[in-house]
Amino acid sequence: MFTIDRSSPVALADQIETRLRALIDSGQLPAGAKLMSIRALASQLRVSPNTVITAYDRLVAHALIDSRGTAGFFVCESSATPHLDTLLEAGEEQDAVWLVQQAHEQRAGVLPASSGALPVSWLEDAIPASVVQRGLARSGGGMATRCPPQGVPELRERLAMLMRSQGIAVDAGRVLTNYGGTHAIDLICRAFLQPGDTVLVENPGYFLLFDRLRQAGVRIVPVTRRHDGPDLDQLEAACTQHRPRLFFVQSVLHNPTGWGSSAANLHRVLMLAERHGVLIAEDDVHGHFHPGPATRLAQLAELRGVIYYSSFCKALSPALRLGYIAAEPALLKPLLREKIHSVLTTAALNEFVLLELLSSGRFRKHIDRLQQKLAAARNTASRELRQAGILLERPAEGGIFLWGAVPPGIDVDVLVKDAYRNGILLARGAAFAADAAGDPHLRFNVIFSQHARLSSYLRERLLALSSAHRAIARASQALR
Amino acid sequence: MFTIDRSSPVALADQIETRLRALIDSGQLPAGAKLMSIRALASQLRVSPNTVITAYDRLVAHALIDSRGTAGFFVCESSATPHLDTLLEAGEEQDAVWLVQQAHEQRAGVLPASSGALPVSWLEDAIPASVVQRGLARSGGGMATRCPPQGVPELRERLAMLMRSQGIAVDAGRVLTNYGGTHAIDLICRAFLQPGDTVLVENPGYFLLFDRLRQAGVRIVPVTRRHDGPDLDQLEAACTQHRPRLFFVQSVLHNPTGWGSSAANLHRVLMLAERHGVLIAEDDVHGHFHPGPATRLAQLAELRGVIYYSSFCKALSPALRLGYIAAEPALLKPLLREKIHSVLTTAALNEFVLLELLSSGRFRKHIDRLQQKLAAARNTASRELRQAGILLERPAEGGIFLWGAVPPGIDVDVLVKDAYRNGILLARGAAFAADAAGDPHLRFNVIFSQHARLSSYLRERLLALSSAHRAIARASQALR
Repeated sequence: MFTIDRSSPVALADQIETRLRALIDSGQLPAGAKLMSIRALASQLRVSPNTVITAYDRLVAHALIDSRGTAGFFVCESSATPHLDTLLEAGEEQDAVWLVQQAHEQRAGVLPASSGALPVSWLEDAIPASVVQRGLARSGGGMATRCPPQGVPELRERLAMLMRSQGIAVDAGRVLTNYGGTHAIDLICRAFLQPGDTVLVENPGYFLLFDRLRQAGVRIVPVTRRHDGPDLDQLEAACTQHRPRLFFVQSVLHNPTGWGSSAANLHRVLMLAERHGVLIAEDDVHGHFHPGPATRLAQLAELRGVIYYSSFCKALSPALRLGYIAAEPALLKPLLREKIHSVLTTAALNEFVLLELLSSGRFRKHIDRLQQKLAAARNTASRELRQAGILLERPAEGGIFLWGAVPPGIDVDVLVKDAYRNGILLARGAAFAADAAGDPHLRFNVIFSQHARLSSYLRERLLALSSAHRAIARASQALR
Repeated sequence: MFTIDRSSPVALADQIETRLRALIDSGQLPAGAKLMSIRALASQLRVSPNTVITAYDRLVAHALIDSRGTAGFFVCESSATPHLDTLLEAGEEQDAVWLVQQAHEQRAGVLPASSGALPVSWLEDAIPASVVQRGLARSGGGMATRCPPQGVPELRERLAMLMRSQGIAVDAGRVLTNYGGTHAIDLICRAFLQPGDTVLVENPGYFLLFDRLRQAGVRIVPVTRRHDGPDLDQLEAACTQHRPRLFFVQSVLHNPTGWGSSAANLHRVLMLAERHGVLIAEDDVHGHFHPGPATRLAQLAELRGVIYYSSFCKALSPALRLGYIAAEPALLKPLLREKIHSVLTTAALNEFVLLELLSSGRFRKHIDRLQQKLAAARNTASRELRQAGILLERPAEGGIFLWGAVPPGIDVDVLVKDAYRNGILLARGAAFAADAAGDPHLRFNVIFSQHARLSSYLRERLLALSSAHRAIARASQALR
């Protein structure tokens, strides 16, 4: 029927699903056609029957195939119902939401070279089922346990300890749990922003933050991100000129550049914020990836005027979806109210599983292992990308990103579209731009960018596009 | 040191925690005092050492006591940090958010007679650890699994089947998972409401809905809830006069009354909504408690112009915090965008556990058992409350609520405050009123209202307040 690629980072079940979809969509498997039995296909592809079951299950869920009991699986008559997945993919919803969809519904055969996440294989051992079990046992009431809106007190205590180990002075009373970084941004916007307010952001930055701010009806003023923090002259000018309410900063392992901040820069940012009465929201959702000590705004300010947030979605488990906010009581209180208004409370199951991970020391060990693997991946990916012709910016201190530009004369949009047609998903710099400016950069995920498929594609295509560029330049010169 | 109440619905660890807190707060256990050892206290109270550990852990987390290694546990010097829990309890944040806090952070010795939830003991067997394990195994990638923003396709398929079994025509493409009823309300407000819009609500209704609508800056127009649905004359007048954008309706087991809706009423509501271009949000978060077949707006309308939402937080597990929305693609799409903006996606762990519960038939069996127990509790509570002097309204068809009034002449606010001082938490009708009108009603939870402590308190206090009322009436007549 078809073959699968065992070296691909894409799960086998996903590959099988996509191949079958393609056969159905193209009519090679017409309506009414009988599929191979689960056992037969599993043995042909040399995968476990469960893998085939997963793929068939999804096709059943999407009404593409149907089970007729013991007779087996058959291709359905084509359904007239458009699925929302398809609607959002169709193109009219580009950029932020589209990128999120792509990231969460990875297609077989597509290499997510710019992904903001670790591959499944890097996280699947982080939380064994036994830990989930022990977490559940900790809760006392099991799955009948209700989580206080501020978060389980023991977990908040552990989170405070974790932050104190990073140098941030905080106690459990100043901690609020939530559903991750995006939820933190949402709560901050709801609690502190009114339409018409001005908000400063680092440029480039996180696209979903920009999207959320636009939705809040605020005016976004970009401040250029340098390798040692935000540009201080621009920051001062923006503070003087626009009287901003809030500044979103990612001090450590900034997304998309991977850069950190110098202590001197952070000190100046705090001075400016205090002088101009600007509240700071410090995003530290990549902070757990940082391999050594790092200075943060929350540490220098001892949380005065700084709302700090981080998450376990990236470094530990996307299936848990837990993050946390730390702030002074006067700032935390409106955030708690907004948490109640948005989701009432977080899930006790997830909080107790996280508590077990933090208390047992398992999280610390997991992070140590991750950092070693990330450093190796970073080396390989940097070398491969450089050799392929990508101009890498000043390297980051760690984390999952590399920030690199295409050579002058090459249209990054043309490259990104061509790559997508070739099954490689690249996120262009413009997606991370707070203004509409063109940008020759691409964000690379250090793990997926080790893949030879990416480097050989880039090497060949950058050469071809460069020579096309030169040919056009020559032709236009000849026309002068 | 103290005793504990084994007949109380409050967990033993909570009771121990609260008693110790009281001893510390009152100075009976001063700073530096040594607590009994875990084993000694456990054996004195005849509880498991784990129960004492839980209580001590929490006191440690709140910095009230401290462990000095093998020397034992000691009362801390009083901390200067006000805890957020305390801040929100202090009184300035009354009503909706305060009630939520109370509900989620039950205090030892307090009987939550008006609670909107089932007691822990009624839910703790619903999801054994083995089911969590099996759910996790289903996910393929375990805790590394990412949940597509619309929800796991197989789960959406199961949810669609569940709704179809209730008569609602829906497929998985029209289903969106979320973090429960409050999250559904939030997404609907974000996706469809602008400040200045008019929104119709049933009166009485859910206090957190009213709070959320006020926050959205919309104008709230109440429509009186009758025992067979919203008052149709008021609804028509409101549609004509105010040109509302949206109408929030709870057709089945309405909160706080427990009433349902007649099919004829629902039909008329839909006719009016269609004629006046009003979108309907149908809240069915108590629907799983309904013992027999019930007609819903979503069924009659086949989802045309109706956004339907329900939840598993109440009937299955508050620790899972999962709910679902069903709507036509044109309405579901903006809701998906808002889900991404608010929380990015739901937690895969929780979705796969729910999938396992639904697929295995365990959920259905759990609900059947619950309904039998609820019917018995409803009988007992109704009898007890009536005998105590509460004037119960027309009984509901099922569910967890009874809606009853205090006798004429009694000030319900005085009763509620007095009950709170006596360790009984009652929610007064005014908390459920969309307007500021006084209301002699109380919401009763059928399970907690079986408790003799409530009925004997009410019997005695209603008598005392009545005779006080008569004495005052006589005195004021004598003065004329």
